[in-house]
Amino acid sequence: MKKISVRTRVLTGTLAAAALAATVGAVSASAETSETPAALAAVKVDTQNKNLAQSTGLTLDSATRAAQATLDAAAKAGQHVSVAVVDRDGVTRVLLKGDGAGPQSPESAQRKAFTAVSWNAPTSELTKRLTQAPTLKDIPGTLFLAGGAPVQSKGAPVAAIGVAGAPSGDLDEQFAQAGVAALAK
Amino acid sequence: MKKISVRTRVLTGTLAAAALAATVGAVSASAETSETPAALAAVKVDTQNKNLAQSTGLTLDSATRAAQATLDAAAKAGQHVSVAVVDRDGVTRVLLKGDGAGPQSPESAQRKAFTAVSWNAPTSELTKRLTQAPTLKDIPGTLFLAGGAPVQSKGAPVAAIGVAGAPSGDLDEQFAQAGVAALAK
Amino acid sequence: MKKISVRTRVLTGTLAAAALAATVGAVSASAETSETPAALAAVKVDTQNKNLAQSTGLTLDSATRAAQATLDAAAKAGQHVSVAVVDRDGVTRVLLKGDGAGPQSPESAQRKAFTAVSWNAPTSELTKRLTQAPTLKDIPGTLFLAGGAPVQSKGAPVAAIGVAGAPSGDLDEQFAQAGVAALAK
Amino acid sequence: MKKISVRTRVLTGTLAAAALAATVGAVSASAETSETPAALAAVKVDTQNKNLAQSTGLTLDSATRAAQATLDAAAKAGQHVSVAVVDRDGVTRVLLKGDGAGPQSPESAQRKAFTAVSWNAPTSELTKRLTQAPTLKDIPGTLFLAGGAPVQSKGAPVAAIGVAGAPSGDLDEQFAQAGVAALAK
Amino acid sequence: MKKISVRTRVLTGTLAAAALAATVGAVSASAETSETPAALAAVKVDTQNKNLAQSTGLTLDSATRAAQATLDAAAKAGQHVSVAVVDRDGVTRVLLKGDGAGPQSPESAQRKAFTAVSWNAPTSELTKRLTQAPTLKDIPGTLFLAGGAPVQSKGAPVAAIGVAGAPSGDLDEQFAQAGVAALAK
Amino acid sequence: MKKISVRTRVLTGTLAAAALAATVGAVSASAETSETPAALAAVKVDTQNKNLAQSTGLTLDSATRAAQATLDAAAKAGQHVSVAVVDRDGVTRVLLKGDGAGPQSPESAQRKAFTAVSWNAPTSELTKRLTQAPTLKDIPGTLFLAGGAPVQSKGAPVAAIGVAGAPSGDLDEQFAQAGVAALAK
Amino acid sequence: MKKISVRTRVLTGTLAAAALAATVGAVSASAETSETPAALAAVKVDTQNKNLAQSTGLTLDSATRAAQATLDAAAKAGQHVSVAVVDRDGVTRVLLKGDGAGPQSPESAQRKAFTAVSWNAPTSELTKRLTQAPTLKDIPGTLFLAGGAPVQSKGAPVAAIGVAGAPSGDLDEQFAQAGVAALAK
Amino acid sequence: MKKISVRTRVLTGTLAAAALAATVGAVSASAETSETPAALAAVKVDTQNKNLAQSTGLTLDSATRAAQATLDAAAKAGQHVSVAVVDRDGVTRVLLKGDGAGPQSPESAQRKAFTAVSWNAPTSELTKRLTQAPTLKDIPGTLFLAGGAPVQSKGAPVAAIGVAGAPSGDLDEQFAQAGVAALAK
Repeated sequence: MKKISVRTRVLTGTLAAAALAATVGAVSASAETSETPAALAAVKVDTQNKNLAQSTGLTLDSATRAAQATLDAAAKAGQHVSVAVVDRDGVTRVLLKGDGAGPQSPESAQRKAFTAVSWNAPTSELTKRLTQAPTLKDIPGTLFLAGGAPVQSKGAPVAAIGVAGAPSGDLDEQFAQAGVAALAK
Repeated sequence: MKKISVRTRVLTGTLAAAALAATVGAVSASAETSETPAALAAVKVDTQNKNLAQSTGLTLDSATRAAQATLDAAAKAGQHVSVAVVDRDGVTRVLLKGDGAGPQSPESAQRKAFTAVSWNAPTSELTKRLTQAPTLKDIPGTLFLAGGAPVQSKGAPVAAIGVAGAPSGDLDEQFAQAGVAALAK
Repeated sequence: MKKISVRTRVLTGTLAAAALAATVGAVSASAETSETPAALAAVKVDTQNKNLAQSTGLTLDSATRAAQATLDAAAKAGQHVSVAVVDRDGVTRVLLKGDGAGPQSPESAQRKAFTAVSWNAPTSELTKRLTQAPTLKDIPGTLFLAGGAPVQSKGAPVAAIGVAGAPSGDLDEQFAQAGVAALAK
Repeated sequence: MKKISVRTRVLTGTLAAAALAATVGAVSASAETSETPAALAAVKVDTQNKNLAQSTGLTLDSATRAAQATLDAAAKAGQHVSVAVVDRDGVTRVLLKGDGAGPQSPESAQRKAFTAVSWNAPTSELTKRLTQAPTLKDIPGTLFLAGGAPVQSKGAPVAAIGVAGAPSGDLDEQFAQAGVAALAK
Repeated sequence: MKKISVRTRVLTGTLAAAALAATVGAVSASAETSETPAALAAVKVDTQNKNLAQSTGLTLDSATRAAQATLDAAAKAGQHVSVAVVDRDGVTRVLLKGDGAGPQSPESAQRKAFTAVSWNAPTSELTKRLTQAPTLKDIPGTLFLAGGAPVQSKGAPVAAIGVAGAPSGDLDEQFAQAGVAALAK
Repeated sequence: MKKISVRTRVLTGTLAAAALAATVGAVSASAETSETPAALAAVKVDTQNKNLAQSTGLTLDSATRAAQATLDAAAKAGQHVSVAVVDRDGVTRVLLKGDGAGPQSPESAQRKAFTAVSWNAPTSELTKRLTQAPTLKDIPGTLFLAGGAPVQSKGAPVAAIGVAGAPSGDLDEQFAQAGVAALAK
Repeated sequence: MKKISVRTRVLTGTLAAAALAATVGAVSASAETSETPAALAAVKVDTQNKNLAQSTGLTLDSATRAAQATLDAAAKAGQHVSVAVVDRDGVTRVLLKGDGAGPQSPESAQRKAFTAVSWNAPTSELTKRLTQAPTLKDIPGTLFLAGGAPVQSKGAPVAAIGVAGAPSGDLDEQFAQAGVAALAK
Repeated sequence: MKKISVRTRVLTGTLAAAALAATVGAVSASAETSETPAALAAVKVDTQNKNLAQSTGLTLDSATRAAQATLDAAAKAGQHVSVAVVDRDGVTRVLLKGDGAGPQSPESAQRKAFTAVSWNAPTSELTKRLTQAPTLKDIPGTLFLAGGAPVQSKGAPVAAIGVAGAPSGDLDEQFAQAGVAALAK
């Protein structure tokens, strides 16, 4: 696409928007929308490919399946836990508060997952780093307590699973790892 | 990679962990770098491809360039503004508080960008939807005020630019659109 | 259980605590598991039945199934949404951020569910109440936007499902209702 | 109730809703409500029993009585404290800020109660666990300081009492235990 | 007390502190305290009376009684509500979450009480002011919804009671007023 | 005042309100108010004296003077600091951000003052208590760092001054004590 | 200063730091500091002037004087208010909570000042803009209610004064303007 | 400017405002504004110079250049980091979330920069101070972890750069120092 001035872009974009309106379907359709296409036009110009990067994450189906496997492992051990699955950006994809799990467990699970995906390591390991860098744990959003495990693709973190509620963090992490393992099957 | 049972994995990992304890060190160790594969075995199992989805975003270089083009357009118009670029998840990639821009402008810019990427439309258009659904604006993180513009790839939102600080939201959005346009060049 | 005076209880507990200190250990001990009853004596006195009330909620299995049915309905309609299931106390039991759902959708879904369970009515109906009581929507935690539906048992609210991400709140609520319906099967 | 389609359910539900309207009384009655029954119908279908779980908590009368007994014990000891009673979900049922109690005491009391109910143990005991798991105290909402005591029914936590404001946490917890004891009488 | 230099004050204050230690009793006593009196001395100098102002508030006993009267009125009307009593500074003295009251009700009750004490008027009246000053309701901490009633002494606000959970704010406020009335008996 | 029913109270109160309306003056006057006296009546009944307690605080004039004396002491020592004066409830009465004082200093000063008034002791002393009760510092709103000094009347805390910004907390506290001393003159 | 490599810079900086240590005095002095100069060196290189911009603000003395003049005007009118002075960045320099001013007044005053400095206009005027851009008031930190007045230097905003607590915003703003006027004397 | 009464000031200011309206241009112009000049007048009186102080900061261009140099240094070392530049008031001027940098890195970078500018020292040095004053790290907004470096002008802090995301804080700080060094060229 050649360089276009802002003003020209608006007109061009109008056409593009009109074309899109017929094809995009549900995503851009809106019952409330009655604006003229021209108003929308300017931003319908597509970004050039050279500006784009791809990132990898779990589908929600997979994330849910992993969370379920986590809960199954906990149930088998007779433990009541909550589980969270976060994506590479630390955003929660799945949060399940277990039957009988304490009120502290959902946020604890989320933070363990956030921590695991941030450093691409299980939180049981990360906790050891506090010996030399004790203030790592003051970084907002983190929880340096066993129970978080990263999900990796080609060695890079693409998600993480966090678990909380069992009597020890090691148990929590064992269940999180069961969830990770379910994604390798 | 072969399927492994949860129980086997735990045992393997346990041994690895014991070995690890003596060798990993702490601060300088990084999940990407030097720990032995066995040590983190349980979580190093790569996720199957079928579980993965790709998402598209801007490189930081592109996002910064777009933000700069936004500021250039504002400067040409003699306006002092702040600009934010967020990704598809609403996470801020770039935030620049302009010289002379008011203290309200950075968060205003971020929220406009967040809003634009959430509904894949410029906020000037989204504001019109409030006539029929006035409580849309109560959704946390949003700001239904002109000045936000989505960045699209194949019609889908991959980022958004938000601007605040000019005397009117329409001017803010004109600058945001200049930033979007810079990505189409 | 016989009535005990505060003073006696304190003394008893003191002895037990002394004994406990040597045996319990810490991390692995769990109130549900292995400490000696005497140890926690002071607080282990069971509450009298007359002090207790029962409340009803969904099992996590049911909540998850309802959320899944919600997502299935959305998928059938070609929509990308997030779904939340909250209990009678407004606490999130299930949160699923859909593939391709916008970043505003998870908290929007949670708040719709919170609102629906608070007033035991779908949010599409509750929104109408704003005509007469417009400041209802300023109550913290709420979102008066279609998309939330209560789950009832004998007419009382026991949970709620909230959905966000479709082009209109009416669509969101249709999916939420599909989730509720799955619990009636 | 047999499986019904979403559309059928709406009609069926309408009838159910109409029936409910006459019997439910105060809970669903609303001075502001004028919506047609049909609109509300879909969500009036009752959840199946198999989806439901019961949880146990204190009545407000009991919780208030326990809080009062706590304050009485503090007054007898000449101490100015605040007291909180939370339910199993960590939600505050009763909060009383004592005459002369410091401004830090209400939230301190709430957090101690939250902590006690989360792990079903008095906070004086839980504090000891920090020796082996020092980051437990970083879990949001918690306070690992003596003064919180769980209320149990058949060994399971159904509530907790937290106290703050006395010169030592041990004194605080003694008063909290007096509150728990009042529920055993 | 004559003017003293900071240095002199320390020595003088030491003596004062020593004297205080014997008489103040519980308030300043602390099991953890082992600092030398000298260290504490400087701040033990009493403020001159001319610097002081008296403010009036409810005793906790009275506030609790008012809250109970509020709940009794609600129970008589068959309504499930939460009630809050705040002091002149808007600080919560009493918070009771009623059996069966929705999860939105405690904070709603607190904010209504906060609003009523801030403007020394029932919130049903204050809501009317929004016609002319609609942004009053944007002041943090407030809720302009019927259900809050100030407690006055000589016409000045000394506390307020807020109620939430009934089908209408007018009902909520009727119960709040019953609580206020209990203080006039 | 004899016991009156809620309904009777309304009528009685109306008269009281009408009388009050003429005498209260500025506090209750409002340009926006046009509600009928009857509506307001119920809450105009004055609380009985037996329900009331007096609390002591600084006048704003005194608090400002103390803050100024604090800054003067800092200026004399060539230090750039911020100062806060809080009342017995921990509410900020005065906050002054000094020229050249760092951005962390205002909230640091507030929290030191909050901590000092909460425990009626200078924060330099309170910090020592962490040796035995290290989690005291996790109580929300507190900062266990030298620089806070309580203001007392008859040994009880009525306010506190907090200072932050000097190279050491001991210096900060010396300035705070100068502020306290100014109130003893 | 010529371009230097990072490594060279460290060495050079060390010398600069050593020199600075003797001259800077109080600002950088710290009782706790014992780090070697080399560690600190790299960041002691002074920024080039071409990178710098000057901004204008009030001295704390002036800001305090303006706040006092504001309170004097309110006192003359028999009103109880709180006052805030913020700088161009919206940061609070002075906050005074008036005797008898309501608990909502300090934050209300701060937000009015924040709003006035953000748009360089009194909030009474800014409120009128809501007619055409009603969502302006959703920008975080703002309050579009009369009572805020900017302080200008050469027409540009350098600070603002916010007042809250009087029966009407117009009165509040009159007092704020009295504070501004005091700076013109 | 001579002392003027508030009332006189209004009239005088009106003229000043009218004059300003023609000259100020974009900054004060607003498409939404239709208020009468008189209303605005009172606050258009310029502050006297004696009330003003100048503060020094980076231009956005310089801050952006420094951030870019920081990222270049990180890229050269093969590290994925985020970078923040804050001004003397701790306000973020530039925030860039690096490609592949973890979700914890932006806020971590901001806090390191905030900490460095607050104490005018690199955070690697400040962390050492925790040995003697461990609660320094509890000051809100701070993060005592290597990776923050102040930008100085004549020895005083005018900004700071914070970096997060590398395997160690020392690496982070090395990149931050590269950013600072770019400002010395």
